[in-house]
Amino acid sequence: MILDPLFSPRSVAIVGASQNARKVGGMPVHLLGQLGYAGAIYPVNPGAAEVQGLKAFASVAELPEPVDMAIVAVPAGSVEPVIEQLVAQRARAAVVLSSGFAEMGEQGAVVQARMAACARKSGLALLGPNCLGVMNLRQKLFATFSPAPLAGVPQVGSVAIVSQSGAFGAYAYSLARKNDLGLSHWVTTGNEAAVSVADVIDWLADDADTQVILAYIEGARDGAALQRALLKARAAGKPVIVTKVGRTAAGARAAMSHTASLSGEDAVYQAVFDATGAIRARTVDEMFRLAQAFALGMPPAGRRLAIVTVSGGVGTLMADSASDEGLELPPLPAPVCEALRARIPFCATDNPVDVTGQVTADLPVLGMAMQGAATSGEYDALAIFVAAALGSPALAPPIVQMVRETLAAAPQMPVALSGIADDQTRRALLDAGCLVYEEPTHAVEVLAAKARWAAHRAEEVAVPAPLAQPPAVLNEVEALAFLSRHGVPPAPHRLAHSAEEAVSAWKALGGQAVLKIVSADLLHKSDVGGVRVGLRSEQEVREAHDAIVASVTRLAPRARRQGLLVARKLDPLAEVMLGARHDPVFGTVIVLGLGGVAVELHARTAVLTAPTSAARVHACLAGLGILKLLGGWRGRPAVDAQPLVDTVLRFADIAAALGPRLGTLEINPLIVTAEGVAAADAVVSFVPA
Amino acid sequence: MILDPLFSPRSVAIVGASQNARKVGGMPVHLLGQLGYAGAIYPVNPGAAEVQGLKAFASVAELPEPVDMAIVAVPAGSVEPVIEQLVAQRARAAVVLSSGFAEMGEQGAVVQARMAACARKSGLALLGPNCLGVMNLRQKLFATFSPAPLAGVPQVGSVAIVSQSGAFGAYAYSLARKNDLGLSHWVTTGNEAAVSVADVIDWLADDADTQVILAYIEGARDGAALQRALLKARAAGKPVIVTKVGRTAAGARAAMSHTASLSGEDAVYQAVFDATGAIRARTVDEMFRLAQAFALGMPPAGRRLAIVTVSGGVGTLMADSASDEGLELPPLPAPVCEALRARIPFCATDNPVDVTGQVTADLPVLGMAMQGAATSGEYDALAIFVAAALGSPALAPPIVQMVRETLAAAPQMPVALSGIADDQTRRALLDAGCLVYEEPTHAVEVLAAKARWAAHRAEEVAVPAPLAQPPAVLNEVEALAFLSRHGVPPAPHRLAHSAEEAVSAWKALGGQAVLKIVSADLLHKSDVGGVRVGLRSEQEVREAHDAIVASVTRLAPRARRQGLLVARKLDPLAEVMLGARHDPVFGTVIVLGLGGVAVELHARTAVLTAPTSAARVHACLAGLGILKLLGGWRGRPAVDAQPLVDTVLRFADIAAALGPRLGTLEINPLIVTAEGVAAADAVVSFVPA
Repeated sequence: MILDPLFSPRSVAIVGASQNARKVGGMPVHLLGQLGYAGAIYPVNPGAAEVQGLKAFASVAELPEPVDMAIVAVPAGSVEPVIEQLVAQRARAAVVLSSGFAEMGEQGAVVQARMAACARKSGLALLGPNCLGVMNLRQKLFATFSPAPLAGVPQVGSVAIVSQSGAFGAYAYSLARKNDLGLSHWVTTGNEAAVSVADVIDWLADDADTQVILAYIEGARDGAALQRALLKARAAGKPVIVTKVGRTAAGARAAMSHTASLSGEDAVYQAVFDATGAIRARTVDEMFRLAQAFALGMPPAGRRLAIVTVSGGVGTLMADSASDEGLELPPLPAPVCEALRARIPFCATDNPVDVTGQVTADLPVLGMAMQGAATSGEYDALAIFVAAALGSPALAPPIVQMVRETLAAAPQMPVALSGIADDQTRRALLDAGCLVYEEPTHAVEVLAAKARWAAHRAEEVAVPAPLAQPPAVLNEVEALAFLSRHGVPPAPHRLAHSAEEAVSAWKALGGQAVLKIVSADLLHKSDVGGVRVGLRSEQEVREAHDAIVASVTRLAPRARRQGLLVARKLDPLAEVMLGARHDPVFGTVIVLGLGGVAVELHARTAVLTAPTSAARVHACLAGLGILKLLGGWRGRPAVDAQPLVDTVLRFADIAAALGPRLGTLEINPLIVTAEGVAAADAVVSFVPA
Repeated sequence: MILDPLFSPRSVAIVGASQNARKVGGMPVHLLGQLGYAGAIYPVNPGAAEVQGLKAFASVAELPEPVDMAIVAVPAGSVEPVIEQLVAQRARAAVVLSSGFAEMGEQGAVVQARMAACARKSGLALLGPNCLGVMNLRQKLFATFSPAPLAGVPQVGSVAIVSQSGAFGAYAYSLARKNDLGLSHWVTTGNEAAVSVADVIDWLADDADTQVILAYIEGARDGAALQRALLKARAAGKPVIVTKVGRTAAGARAAMSHTASLSGEDAVYQAVFDATGAIRARTVDEMFRLAQAFALGMPPAGRRLAIVTVSGGVGTLMADSASDEGLELPPLPAPVCEALRARIPFCATDNPVDVTGQVTADLPVLGMAMQGAATSGEYDALAIFVAAALGSPALAPPIVQMVRETLAAAPQMPVALSGIADDQTRRALLDAGCLVYEEPTHAVEVLAAKARWAAHRAEEVAVPAPLAQPPAVLNEVEALAFLSRHGVPPAPHRLAHSAEEAVSAWKALGGQAVLKIVSADLLHKSDVGGVRVGLRSEQEVREAHDAIVASVTRLAPRARRQGLLVARKLDPLAEVMLGARHDPVFGTVIVLGLGGVAVELHARTAVLTAPTSAARVHACLAGLGILKLLGGWRGRPAVDAQPLVDTVLRFADIAAALGPRLGTLEINPLIVTAEGVAAADAVVSFVPA
């Protein structure tokens, strides 16, 4: 789909144009006519020779040229014929403002689908229906019926807003104007018959006028397209700041495996954002704060933060925040400390640096601290707190000058300042390239977000080769063999078909073993007496074999008995569960967690899209506390996490390679020992091709 | 200590008064003289007959009357004699601005302690040293060397600010002015030689001019005083909003028990705030937002929230936030829904209610939704989102009028609105009694904070009677008996002194039992082979008895062997660990958690001050997920949580009654079964009197 005519049309027709500027068909004529759009404007109205002072046309067929864009503002029942006429007249884009389609029920959805098919076939870029339109701020294109532009137009800038919701989009437009956030484009996608938020992000990733993308998403239909678009934006160096609200209906997830049921749909979205570097905002406030921070065009941040303050208390608050955000606070190098102490003896020269209230008596010391930290080579970002000093007409100009000098001396250092500043001082600091906040923790949070984004851009994901066709349902021995073939080691085990075979397997495995019935028909082996542990003699192994066979025969007479698995009992340092499922929107995802009832209770699981990268797996194992557990926690032996990371990557590759043929893929537990990892139980099944 | 002269002095002397208004001893003379203080002002300066136009006195001894307050701004070395002179002259309060005491090291601390003792003996209210002073906004008392009042004075109002940090206090003053927050008093306590933040809160709890208290705390020395002050403020109906930054040194907690080591000092502060209803703010921003919300004098909120919006997307965002904050969103009653649907057919009438963008065409429907929800009797609070509608000169006045009518029709309903509003509209809404935010989630968060506070005021804590003197160290049987006497049931058990006694105890307990060595000298019984489980025959019990005795004799030859405990093995629905310790600042605290390695790893424990209330225990069990676990989680049997709640209350009472004599008090695990709870292992020891 070619979206250029949606964003840069040389001509616009308004189908259903109205004389009344307050009506849906009147507002776009008014806005295009009054706010400076330079292209041709063609009102279409069968009953008027002129609309708002412009020559009108009786129908689409009578338009004097194939238009780049048609805004459609006719009643729902008349939209489909208009789309057909537009296709016939070789229009390139349609912005359907009319409501009354999929949002109204089945009948509307059918018409909407027909319109989408018609548009797709002919290459017409169809936006909406039930949307609020599109704006290109540079070209003064206001193809919308929102009255918001009448109250004022935001600065032209490098931030694009794309919103599924019209109301949210209009609100975001007003906030951008109020907060002086410069916009490139503004798009609402409404029902997304054809053009989706993902399509718009994809286009914006190529757009030279856009550097930062704000996206509001209620739910994506094509998860792969969204992921591709987010990755394309990341590759183009354009941060995407996403607000994703609510959860989709639980009904959509009926086929979900037990493990995944802990995760909630929202966790999948989060996994997608994590995997693609999209930055999730929890509030509207945060969305705009991040947009401004990324739009300022500062150098990228890293994790080593310097904090320079005039208050030890607020410095501590900022250090707490830095720690929450995963930033490091390396100490200030000794020469800088000494220089500061020479000027203010009781200046705290740890990091946070507190130049104390004495700064009012010796202001230059604040500049020394800023510049000393920024040029020391020990830091990747600088956060400053100056309390109310910028409110003083005597202090504000020299502080702004200090910031300028710091930025000149350390051009690779992103700087965020907090304190009370009037608009003029705030503007001067922003113009100098320094972020400004009233809330001290915001300075830390935006630098942390920038650091995370910079780190994320380096991540790479390799796509696995497809797998050979396996049978539909595997028993446990087959499941372990399948995993083993694809790089996941099983616990040592043997398959036994008699009590004697069980005894010799038990001996061969060193006398520490578990006996389990093998049957592709039995998912819950314990429930039918199919598992025995703690076997301490040949006699007990023989008895256990017979007891299992007897119990399974009695309780599950129809289940195939495919032998007994004799598996070595391992001594776990940690037990991890791994599950995978095919998400209807986003494709393959895997779920990781620690085992045990308390863990399930607290939903301590994490979701990753598959395939994934070692960086993602590391982040996930750290988040679950598993890295801490393996790192010698509470006097336990420390073990190398690498075999676990590799195995999770292999597991994700298997799941991704299966794609939609994935039925159940679960290892529970995957046992981590001092020697490596081993799958101690596995369930594998496939959806028939 | 009588603090009245600190807040309402009829006369103020400035010792070390300077002609130069920019100096520490000059600024207070300037501020008192210029900003309207009505009492007598006496500069004290041996070298001047007049200071800043006021008659000066050569020394404290020559003051014409015993002053209510003396501001001390002389070099550190001269402060102590001044304090002695002030005591001799019967001054009632001293505000020591001078630095150079405890913050400088041991020597300064010694002088400071002497000054504090001198002040205490004579009833002198000593504020500081190393503080920024005190203000009473009504009386125009600016006893400070902060230049902040020169830039402007905040409104007089009902919010008091008390801060340990001078720099934070000055910043908060500036923010109050900038944000139109009306102040009653402003106090910085600095080194707290005598007057602490707790003392100030205690005084403010009685002060008729103060309704809301903002406190900034770095660390309390007298935890009991802080708790008493916070409870007094709560009883007086005055919310205390606290910012507590940083963590105290790990060294202060050497005597801490293993269980408590999971909690961190900060968790104790949090427990104190939870127990006293203090509202913790995580950012400066939040501190002021909450202050304003509580200062507005709205009716108390409850948990049932109605959300009325013009955007389904933002409504969902607000619903997510309400859910995070533990609020309920009951559905809108049918008659209100029907009335709304009759006007806007596609209005979403669930809660959140979305009157849609059609509100611009039919504005009164917004008022119908607000008032319908507010007067329905189904809600305790109302949050509204109007996007940019208040930015329109045509829409703002009628929306403000709707809010007024809603408040008039439902005077018991707290209302918070979000959207873009200019200052005038914002002011009009606040004057009407409606909170206003730009960020939609803030409207939800403040209503949630108000609801939590209202619920908290109802909580009561009973103080337990002291316990009879027990021996210093108990063995496990004695520990279980001690707990049992005080209301904590043990698991059924017997004490055996021979293999035969062990066998008959095993039989009597139903053949499902654990054998453990009993010794007050052995804390870790497993480590010396002192525990055996899974005993299935008399023979195995006999062998286990002999093996335990042999192993303990060999591995711990000096430990007293006080028999063997034969304890019934219970079938746990949940295992809870309970610990207690005596915190050096706050006295007795207890720690709760679920058992198991994963739980420890994720530090899933909670701290409560002791004694505590059923409401606190409930909140804590809910926070740990234990209530969910007992409530029939994932197909497990549901059991009554009351026996567990009662046992935790008894445990807290025992710990509190022991007070500083508490050594170790730990139950791990406390087993929850369908029949109730039982302590399966306990460690109890006492600090010798």
